Amino acid sequence: MSVDLNRGAFSADNCSVARTLAVVGEKWTMLVLREAFYGVRRFSEIQANLGIARNLLTDRLGTLVEHGILDRETYQEPNSRARQEYRLTPKGHDLFPALIALLQWGDTYLADPAGPAVTVEHNDCGSAVHVELRCAHGHGPLTVRDVHPVPGPGALPSGAAGSPPRRSA
Amino acid sequence: MSVDLNRGAFSADNCSVARTLAVVGEKWTMLVLREAFYGVRRFSEIQANLGIARNLLTDRLGTLVEHGILDRETYQEPNSRARQEYRLTPKGHDLFPALIALLQWGDTYLADPAGPAVTVEHNDCGSAVHVELRCAHGHGPLTVRDVHPVPGPGALPSGAAGSPPRRSA
Repeated sequence: MSVDLNRGAFSADNCSVARTLAVVGEKWTMLVLREAFYGVRRFSEIQANLGIARNLLTDRLGTLVEHGILDRETYQEPNSRARQEYRLTPKGHDLFPALIALLQWGDTYLADPAGPAVTVEHNDCGSAVHVELRCAHGHGPLTVRDVHPVPGPGALPSGAAGSPPRRSA
Repeated sequence: MSVDLNRGAFSADNCSVARTLAVVGEKWTMLVLREAFYGVRRFSEIQANLGIARNLLTDRLGTLVEHGILDRETYQEPNSRARQEYRLTPKGHDLFPALIALLQWGDTYLADPAGPAVTVEHNDCGSAVHVELRCAHGHGPLTVRDVHPVPGPGALPSGAAGSPPRRSA
């Protein structure tokens, strides 16, 4: 992104990064999603894997259900009491590239000398998966230097009438 | 990710997602990075764009400099006092796919009816940029259903000797 957006001329009120982080921009939330992507569905297992306090986990799961990222489903095994499971919705599945992008960066810069704890593989060929930046015309992989931001269809001028004071979440 | 990792058998202590979130997994931190990607380099401009308290911004910038994601550089215009600028390092540039992945999800699910506030375009052809999941053999774009996690070279068994109590950050 070598080109400045004339950043000061546009409001940050309706930035999709800010709105996304308002939903999932919290460490525990993303780690709960990590567990969901790993196939962990029960409260007790998520709690054990993360070592998170019950009330915090209840809160984070509630937020994810409220935003339609996880579905809460009741299941009951014979002779057991009913329990609840949490499953990713399609909206939740669509967060997977963001999770892989974070994983990839951490694997590059923060992994143990032995290497990453987890590798994500393509089912068909078994080779490792990564995220790439590509354009709608199929060019890529691109880097930050190959792209620039432009105001989108929903861009709001700074201080637009009806726009609340500039905040980011 | 249709296949369970046998999640309970592996420690989350060295997960790269958790480690990444320990550095950038906070709403303001990612928004500070958003401003950096938009070409905003001065403390005062970042602060004005985000509406963040000075002490919080100082703290977040300090963390990003400490982790080598931003460089702090001093510049001085003629007849002005010295100021500091913050520029993304290569390690910082490598967070761009994660930012675009978050932007993309927000554009899909949280944008105003008018559309996204910002579009990121390929310099060469002007078409919109997105992140894709691809494998090392070039297959893709892939979805979460096309992939599965496997223990990586650095995987630690649960409760491995020398492994601290299971936490995630």
